[in-house]
Amino acid sequence: MAAPDTGWMSSHLALVVLELVGIFVFAISGALTAIKKDFDAIGILILAEVTATGGGVIRDLIIGDTPPAAFRQVEVLLVPLIAAVVAFFAHPVVERLNFTVLLFDAAGLGLFCVTGTLKALDHGLGPVQSAALGVTTGVGGGLLRDVIARETPALVQVNTDLYAIPAMLGAAAVTVAHRLELPMSVAAPAAAAFVFAFRVVAMVRHWTAPRAWTRRSDASSKRA
Amino acid sequence: MAAPDTGWMSSHLALVVLELVGIFVFAISGALTAIKKDFDAIGILILAEVTATGGGVIRDLIIGDTPPAAFRQVEVLLVPLIAAVVAFFAHPVVERLNFTVLLFDAAGLGLFCVTGTLKALDHGLGPVQSAALGVTTGVGGGLLRDVIARETPALVQVNTDLYAIPAMLGAAAVTVAHRLELPMSVAAPAAAAFVFAFRVVAMVRHWTAPRAWTRRSDASSKRA
Amino acid sequence: MAAPDTGWMSSHLALVVLELVGIFVFAISGALTAIKKDFDAIGILILAEVTATGGGVIRDLIIGDTPPAAFRQVEVLLVPLIAAVVAFFAHPVVERLNFTVLLFDAAGLGLFCVTGTLKALDHGLGPVQSAALGVTTGVGGGLLRDVIARETPALVQVNTDLYAIPAMLGAAAVTVAHRLELPMSVAAPAAAAFVFAFRVVAMVRHWTAPRAWTRRSDASSKRA
Repeated sequence: MAAPDTGWMSSHLALVVLELVGIFVFAISGALTAIKKDFDAIGILILAEVTATGGGVIRDLIIGDTPPAAFRQVEVLLVPLIAAVVAFFAHPVVERLNFTVLLFDAAGLGLFCVTGTLKALDHGLGPVQSAALGVTTGVGGGLLRDVIARETPALVQVNTDLYAIPAMLGAAAVTVAHRLELPMSVAAPAAAAFVFAFRVVAMVRHWTAPRAWTRRSDASSKRA
Repeated sequence: MAAPDTGWMSSHLALVVLELVGIFVFAISGALTAIKKDFDAIGILILAEVTATGGGVIRDLIIGDTPPAAFRQVEVLLVPLIAAVVAFFAHPVVERLNFTVLLFDAAGLGLFCVTGTLKALDHGLGPVQSAALGVTTGVGGGLLRDVIARETPALVQVNTDLYAIPAMLGAAAVTVAHRLELPMSVAAPAAAAFVFAFRVVAMVRHWTAPRAWTRRSDASSKRA
Repeated sequence: MAAPDTGWMSSHLALVVLELVGIFVFAISGALTAIKKDFDAIGILILAEVTATGGGVIRDLIIGDTPPAAFRQVEVLLVPLIAAVVAFFAHPVVERLNFTVLLFDAAGLGLFCVTGTLKALDHGLGPVQSAALGVTTGVGGGLLRDVIARETPALVQVNTDLYAIPAMLGAAAVTVAHRLELPMSVAAPAAAAFVFAFRVVAMVRHWTAPRAWTRRSDASSKRA
């Protein structure tokens, strides 16, 4: 009887560690944005906290699960503080590790969009709404980061590597698995791994989402 | 006994259809802003969703009615998706229909500020607070749209045609009717129609809200 | 027995008056930002309301205490309206009183970060989370003001006088006093007064938070 318990505990521990790593890396991306914009130490801390916790806080407010997880588990607030301190002193090193940071960020994206979708399903929301909340969990913090830093959100900008689309597909996969009653202990990690892999390939190959479709017939008729 | 039921159903159906039309048109305005700013397909979808659902989500979070309506009724998330697809392919057509879009937007404004005020009154909020939430329902989505798109919010800009003031008067009218216990089946549509008409006239006549009052005596005394 | 009751009532009344003064001054800072950015009358009102009530609304949403205080006590919405009208007509006078406004703003900051922390502790949140919410109560409205006005948030900008750091220390002091079970009737005013004094000295002496630490060895090695 000990074996499955241990198995569950170790996988649970792995999940907690992975989530804290995701929070750390999201916080690093917030802190680096603040440093790039020449904000002061407080700005670095605030962007680290908002980037790391923003998506989950929005998700929990919408679900109605208050206080949000970030205000119940103290480590969710402390990890971004550590990330801010690390970035404050070691940002030249961290910037040189840019691709490594982006890899961990992709892992965080995969993890957060899957756990966000699962939490929404657990609270009885429908599949479309749960997938939307899963994506919000993954991309919300980065959106708030860019709004506060007065940058055009990377999320919406032309010529940025795909970010939301892997999250959308991963969240959708989770809702389908939930509907088909597939075992989540397999489906959830698979979906998170898919998001991670898709995002990494999109970065390497520079896959981008299209601009609005411009009617070429218009242009050609004008030229004629 | 069938007659009043049918009457109620048909008016209820009309309300549902009108609300979805309002959501569609708000989403179109978000999608067109994204296209104007040259955002990618994801940016078009996100601005469509945020513009259409943002005001109502803020209202429901403040009232404490979670999950917000947008995350309970799936059509509230799907209609902006359709609007985003329409704008993505047909934006040159939609832009030529600019005035038509603004007309529907005025209808959405009237509808949302009235239903938002009524919902807040139903939840026991005071008249001033309910009117404030009604206006928030009407203008909140557009404010979030402009913040994400990094545009000076149309809501606060000098030389934009009146938008919030019709909504404020309509919301106030609903709270007065509620206090006087007038029949809402008459008062609510009347208030929504008033907001619509006021907004349309303000657009046609280019009525604007004043700048801060500058003390002319200062200027003249300096000149002397 | 009348004496302590009266004492409690008068101190309670002082608190209510002080809180409304804080709300008024925060609203003035929002209205002046709107006037500086040449927003119209609606923009002045919206920035006044958001700046004055934003921090407390975010706090109450996160705690789960809905509707937020701003939507229960009508004066919390009416005082910013009065501030907006005052700023609209008398802004040249108000601007000349800039330092006076900043003094009252410092008082508001001290008050809000202390009452925000206490409210979070009362709702059972941990000390770090409560301090974070106290700081959010104090600085959240100003952050929203700057985001809507499309200004780089004063909160994060280099070379701005310390604002968040006094609030953080004050909020931390409240959580320590709470842990040590010190009498809050003494500790809370003391913490608020400390925040006020620290902020005023920081303004007078132009104390600022540091930029990210740049590795000088890098620069010198390049030069060599």
